[in-house]
Amino acid sequence: MSTVFVNIGLSLDGYMAPAGMSLEHWHTPEYKDWGAQWGALMAWVFDQQYFREHLKLGPGGDTGPVNDLLRSTTERIGANIMGKRMFEQGEASWPAEAPFHTPVYVLTHEKREPWERPGGTTFSFITEGPERALELARESAGRRDIRIAGGADVIQQYLNLGVVDELEVALAPVLFGSGRRLFENLREPRPQFRIDRVLDDPAATHVRYVRQ
Amino acid sequence: MSTVFVNIGLSLDGYMAPAGMSLEHWHTPEYKDWGAQWGALMAWVFDQQYFREHLKLGPGGDTGPVNDLLRSTTERIGANIMGKRMFEQGEASWPAEAPFHTPVYVLTHEKREPWERPGGTTFSFITEGPERALELARESAGRRDIRIAGGADVIQQYLNLGVVDELEVALAPVLFGSGRRLFENLREPRPQFRIDRVLDDPAATHVRYVRQ
Repeated sequence: MSTVFVNIGLSLDGYMAPAGMSLEHWHTPEYKDWGAQWGALMAWVFDQQYFREHLKLGPGGDTGPVNDLLRSTTERIGANIMGKRMFEQGEASWPAEAPFHTPVYVLTHEKREPWERPGGTTFSFITEGPERALELARESAGRRDIRIAGGADVIQQYLNLGVVDELEVALAPVLFGSGRRLFENLREPRPQFRIDRVLDDPAATHVRYVRQ
Repeated sequence: MSTVFVNIGLSLDGYMAPAGMSLEHWHTPEYKDWGAQWGALMAWVFDQQYFREHLKLGPGGDTGPVNDLLRSTTERIGANIMGKRMFEQGEASWPAEAPFHTPVYVLTHEKREPWERPGGTTFSFITEGPERALELARESAGRRDIRIAGGADVIQQYLNLGVVDELEVALAPVLFGSGRRLFENLREPRPQFRIDRVLDDPAATHVRYVRQ
């Protein structure tokens, strides 16, 4: 069966996204300095060869263990699940060939026909809740895995359902002070994880937690 | 000059202490299950040989790199600084030979004579604010270092003063869901750190951040 996983960049103070990073301010990254803060959070990824190749940014880049991690994380995904806000931000900024190349299930309250993009990404809009989205993702992922892509509220919903098998965190040495926290609204019984693997890199500490 | 450092256990969701862990409930660890949660947070420390020796819990214990880290962290301390609430919790629970063996500066609004304990711990009560406490700690620490022991609010004050040289975190694979967060109330400009060292252990991920 597919593994359900989260893979997310986190600031040292626990934020997935800085204050000001929203659809409204998507084209004004200087608003609350969100662009620079986001850049610092994700600094570990920009020079990786696989990232550059995947986003068609040109040749070159690092080819060490972080690059291997990035490649294996991306290649194991058979389906993505995301929230409506994340989709709307992406709809405004992704290229026509959206960077997923898998079925993507979008949790929403508005019915909408599936939206097929070049390159193998099809967005399906699910109004029957997170469990139904996961069921559909399992059907389409085959032997590959399911990524709960975000945002924070969607990850929290799946953590609270107890279905997240692996939680992969790239903990960056930055303090945001405010923004959108990953770990909030957790209900009892809280999910239990053990440390599975740590990859030590100067730009971020990559920790994989596996459900106990 | 002495290095000013923080060394703290953190839950994966960023809490230093679970909900319910306060002086009022010190003798009822079953209240909100705080005792078990605290135990899970600090699980990495209890079997270390140095911890057992230091707290006179008897012989035996692990003697690997985590034990070395614990020993060097403790032995480099020439003075401690803590808040009034942490002191009051400790006053109610430490043995006569308080587990510091250094001068301890307690930030408070109430004047009180220094309190000398057997074993080299003297508590001095500082009413002139965190900068004055740090000045006194520097005078007494000599070539050894100064630990900002806690609680969260005191660590936040020193982070906001920009004087924390090293931030050492033992990130435990537990989710508290609520409690006292370490990283709150950070003011601009926020302190900037780089990753200095990661020690990978099954019970906690030990990361040292150094101020940039």
